[in-house]
Amino acid sequence: MEQVLQLSYALDTFYFLMSGALVMWMAAGFAMLEAGLVRSKNTTEILAKNVGLFAIACVMYMLVGYNIMYPGEAISSVIPGLSFLIGGDNAVADVIKGGDDAPYYSGMSDFFFQVVFVATAMSVVSGAVAERMKLMSFFAFAIIFTAVIYPVEGYWKWGGGFLDELGFLDFAGSGIVHMAGAAAALAGVLLLGARKGKYGPNGEVRAFAGANLPMATLGTFILWLGWFGFNGGSELKISNVDEANAVAMVFVNTLMAAAGGVIGALIASKFKFGKVDLTMILNGALAGLVAITAEPLTPTALEATLIGLVGGIIVVFAILMMDSKLKIDDPVGAISVHGIVGIYGLIAVTFTNPDSTLVAQLTGMAVIFAWVFITSLIVWGIIKAVMGIRVSEEEEFEGVDQSECGMEAYPEFTK
Amino acid sequence: MEQVLQLSYALDTFYFLMSGALVMWMAAGFAMLEAGLVRSKNTTEILAKNVGLFAIACVMYMLVGYNIMYPGEAISSVIPGLSFLIGGDNAVADVIKGGDDAPYYSGMSDFFFQVVFVATAMSVVSGAVAERMKLMSFFAFAIIFTAVIYPVEGYWKWGGGFLDELGFLDFAGSGIVHMAGAAAALAGVLLLGARKGKYGPNGEVRAFAGANLPMATLGTFILWLGWFGFNGGSELKISNVDEANAVAMVFVNTLMAAAGGVIGALIASKFKFGKVDLTMILNGALAGLVAITAEPLTPTALEATLIGLVGGIIVVFAILMMDSKLKIDDPVGAISVHGIVGIYGLIAVTFTNPDSTLVAQLTGMAVIFAWVFITSLIVWGIIKAVMGIRVSEEEEFEGVDQSECGMEAYPEFTK
Amino acid sequence: MEQVLQLSYALDTFYFLMSGALVMWMAAGFAMLEAGLVRSKNTTEILAKNVGLFAIACVMYMLVGYNIMYPGEAISSVIPGLSFLIGGDNAVADVIKGGDDAPYYSGMSDFFFQVVFVATAMSVVSGAVAERMKLMSFFAFAIIFTAVIYPVEGYWKWGGGFLDELGFLDFAGSGIVHMAGAAAALAGVLLLGARKGKYGPNGEVRAFAGANLPMATLGTFILWLGWFGFNGGSELKISNVDEANAVAMVFVNTLMAAAGGVIGALIASKFKFGKVDLTMILNGALAGLVAITAEPLTPTALEATLIGLVGGIIVVFAILMMDSKLKIDDPVGAISVHGIVGIYGLIAVTFTNPDSTLVAQLTGMAVIFAWVFITSLIVWGIIKAVMGIRVSEEEEFEGVDQSECGMEAYPEFTK
Repeated sequence: MEQVLQLSYALDTFYFLMSGALVMWMAAGFAMLEAGLVRSKNTTEILAKNVGLFAIACVMYMLVGYNIMYPGEAISSVIPGLSFLIGGDNAVADVIKGGDDAPYYSGMSDFFFQVVFVATAMSVVSGAVAERMKLMSFFAFAIIFTAVIYPVEGYWKWGGGFLDELGFLDFAGSGIVHMAGAAAALAGVLLLGARKGKYGPNGEVRAFAGANLPMATLGTFILWLGWFGFNGGSELKISNVDEANAVAMVFVNTLMAAAGGVIGALIASKFKFGKVDLTMILNGALAGLVAITAEPLTPTALEATLIGLVGGIIVVFAILMMDSKLKIDDPVGAISVHGIVGIYGLIAVTFTNPDSTLVAQLTGMAVIFAWVFITSLIVWGIIKAVMGIRVSEEEEFEGVDQSECGMEAYPEFTK
Repeated sequence: MEQVLQLSYALDTFYFLMSGALVMWMAAGFAMLEAGLVRSKNTTEILAKNVGLFAIACVMYMLVGYNIMYPGEAISSVIPGLSFLIGGDNAVADVIKGGDDAPYYSGMSDFFFQVVFVATAMSVVSGAVAERMKLMSFFAFAIIFTAVIYPVEGYWKWGGGFLDELGFLDFAGSGIVHMAGAAAALAGVLLLGARKGKYGPNGEVRAFAGANLPMATLGTFILWLGWFGFNGGSELKISNVDEANAVAMVFVNTLMAAAGGVIGALIASKFKFGKVDLTMILNGALAGLVAITAEPLTPTALEATLIGLVGGIIVVFAILMMDSKLKIDDPVGAISVHGIVGIYGLIAVTFTNPDSTLVAQLTGMAVIFAWVFITSLIVWGIIKAVMGIRVSEEEEFEGVDQSECGMEAYPEFTK
Repeated sequence: MEQVLQLSYALDTFYFLMSGALVMWMAAGFAMLEAGLVRSKNTTEILAKNVGLFAIACVMYMLVGYNIMYPGEAISSVIPGLSFLIGGDNAVADVIKGGDDAPYYSGMSDFFFQVVFVATAMSVVSGAVAERMKLMSFFAFAIIFTAVIYPVEGYWKWGGGFLDELGFLDFAGSGIVHMAGAAAALAGVLLLGARKGKYGPNGEVRAFAGANLPMATLGTFILWLGWFGFNGGSELKISNVDEANAVAMVFVNTLMAAAGGVIGALIASKFKFGKVDLTMILNGALAGLVAITAEPLTPTALEATLIGLVGGIIVVFAILMMDSKLKIDDPVGAISVHGIVGIYGLIAVTFTNPDSTLVAQLTGMAVIFAWVFITSLIVWGIIKAVMGIRVSEEEEFEGVDQSECGMEAYPEFTK
């Protein structure tokens, strides 16, 4: 019996670690997606941005964020609980006593899984502010976002805070992770302004084509794969029949929602443009994934496909609206994919989960959005005042690769 | 005891899900491989094709194909068994009663594993028809292939149909998946014809160089990695000593066959061209993988290496023969890699598995080939008659990226 | 009880196989990193080199290396123990008798895990000799290195040889794998000489920019992901509470050290160049990973971050020193990342592991370096005398892609 409990603990820990590794891989997905969708003169910088933000997210979340988000017992939510810093983990004796209170997976594996989530949230921001932001200013924002802004709203739900008590449901983070990232991005974009030349003097909107679509496609596939860890790991346990069935259901629904998203965006773009717009179907896949993330367990496979399909249609029109009507310049469509579809995902919970209420979902959405948007606006504003957030007009014209990183991404291919 | 059965169920389910995730990753591999091997003016389209076919495969297999291929008890093979659509899975009580009849892994995880296989089969087709096919016609074919053509022949063996009763052996699908995909591709290519300029008026053969070989190499590595899930997961169980040993053997043989394939193609290309032809050694790796897929369990590591090595040699000459002698224009060599080497793989089962017979292997091969080739020819023919399958000469000249997708893959690198 | 032992065996085997698959994936990482950092005219060749060396490593390690490194009982260290070649694995009866001597995972899974390590060591070499070495000469060296040179020093520690008895500690191979690869690379580079034009007649140093930085970044992320298998799998067991905790700790520390390395290199490059040098922060991530590899278990997460951070700072100055002061021409910085930081990693064991001694660490380091460097120098020397190791000046000027592989990597993007 003791041995079975130990083995069960090992399996759940391994499941957490594999899930976390898949989520870590999403960092590569965001980097490739964004590098493929920007122009070649701004590619090195967005790569540096993605590598740097991932490192910052890991360190700040370890030092501060994790302790805010999961304060643990006997420790207040503002005083860090430093146990993982000094290396402790669950004792064998606690595990083998069994029962509902006994720990059933390694605390370190939990930290590993959680830390890659904060990096995901931060990755959403990087694409939206591409091609004109100062790199060090972005990193300054990343420090605050990953140390405080994300962990506080994460605590409200996943740490057991008031949104959790309110009945707000968000399985793996359509709101807590994706919409939160989009809210921070929106605040940044509003202070930053559009790229030079994006909107002409007579109201015309210019498209800036991405330099490397195979890279963008690769990034999307990486994100799709990583999402099995993102959603699949969020069940938090796999070691008995019911939990294993649940994790399998989550995998299937994650797959099907993405497939539905592709088809939705494919139909919408064929209808709208008469062609199969590759960047739209990539965004469709991501929209399907974001849409199902708030509730990947209760839908059937068919329902998940439809939830994703609607997400894929929404994202096409959201991107067009942002770009042409609202004139919010988001080079990769991140605010639409993660923000607008994230909100839709929170609402979609009510389609299949009888425990959810629209009121609780909208309340949670509003609270998270308000918190992240306002605090982000303040932080971006302070950074703007102190060190500036935008490169000079010449630097932008020449490309931020030269001004921020001093090297070209493709020195032999262009010019 | 009950808890051990539950834990065992969880481990087998997790093993299935991880294997399926690796196979899903092969979709990215095919996309990158094919995007790297076509010319830049046809790259966006092949990316869109790969993303789209994957989504179509998931949806059609869920709606129709899975029900044909694995009809389950008490349901005929043509009436869909919709249990997974409405979300049911194994009950705890059925699992913990134990015994040979008890389910030992989640049905959803089985669906997840199977659905990514059909996408693999369909991915084989996309490369062969590259650079000249209408995208929507391709998608129309994908719908029929993934809903009906593949599932029917899959049922004949893996669903317990007559090929299974005949003693035909195909562990993970050298024939059922790879050769089947190649047969569908061959039918399409015959109706489609060669690319303009590929074969000159005086019988000369022109090579069209792939635009991005790092992408093609990445795609090959992705496929190699994903194949551990493809073959490794096809053991279907890992939770005891014999099964764990078997899965480990399959992993080792999959690795070694690919390595052997690289070396075979390297030697053959050095001998034939005097140089180390990168695209040939990539095809060699894939040939080794296809060759071992029909029987990755019974060979020793050394035998697996040799089986792969011969596959790597075969593929070099097969590609040359297809291209120069038969004048079948297959831009990525898919028919050679998956078709000719797939047949070789079916035969290679008899080298090490005493339960196999050459008659059964050849019968299975002929049945699958005939079924897939003939039905595909009919379906392609209908599509050709109804909507056409080939872009216009000008569109082909300008590149299908413009006509089908309206955007360039590398707008800053070319011209 | 028997069933629990079997299940435990299955879990540990599965953990080994997943870890090995992640390490195999590192081969793709090295290929992409190196392909991104060389010039476009030398890209096909480095891709062919990476695919070829991986295949050679698998085959030679199976035929010879594994038997030297893990001779098993009753077999001397020079006579191969061929059991895995003929396909045997642990018997159920041996496993279920339990106890400390009972095998607890598949021997095949162990081979799978070990064989991908030798490929990693060999991959370190390929980048350093890029852009001027004859491809077949490189392969000739790879045969000897993977069959004999690496396995002998691996045996000294991991096979139970004299370095193990000495108390030398190297958890996953900062020295045995990474520094060893760097030592072989250094020997090759010294015999090979710098690339033409790298060092001007008046002592000036020219930088040759890498052709494709998104590829290099992708390669780094792949390596980062694969390293969870590399270090995480090196705990060798996960199936009880203590082992699961240990594996989780290793995952966390591997993540944090890489993050620390990024930040160290970011600070150092900002300080040194005034910009965020992307290639330096990529090397910083790798340096953090190499630094923690010798001891990823005993540090806390904070200590691991600091160990990585120092590694990231070291690597920036090491690369500059190699390039400008020592004039050792290493196009990708492999000798600095894996060699100099590998040595630092061996020393860093003493920071947190009370069982280590500086004397044992330095002895192990000196022994491994001396063995690998001297034998490599001899082997490179023989190859140089017999078949030459360097392409002609014209071939180098035109690019080794033409002379060695006969095809361009990006035929449409350049010139």
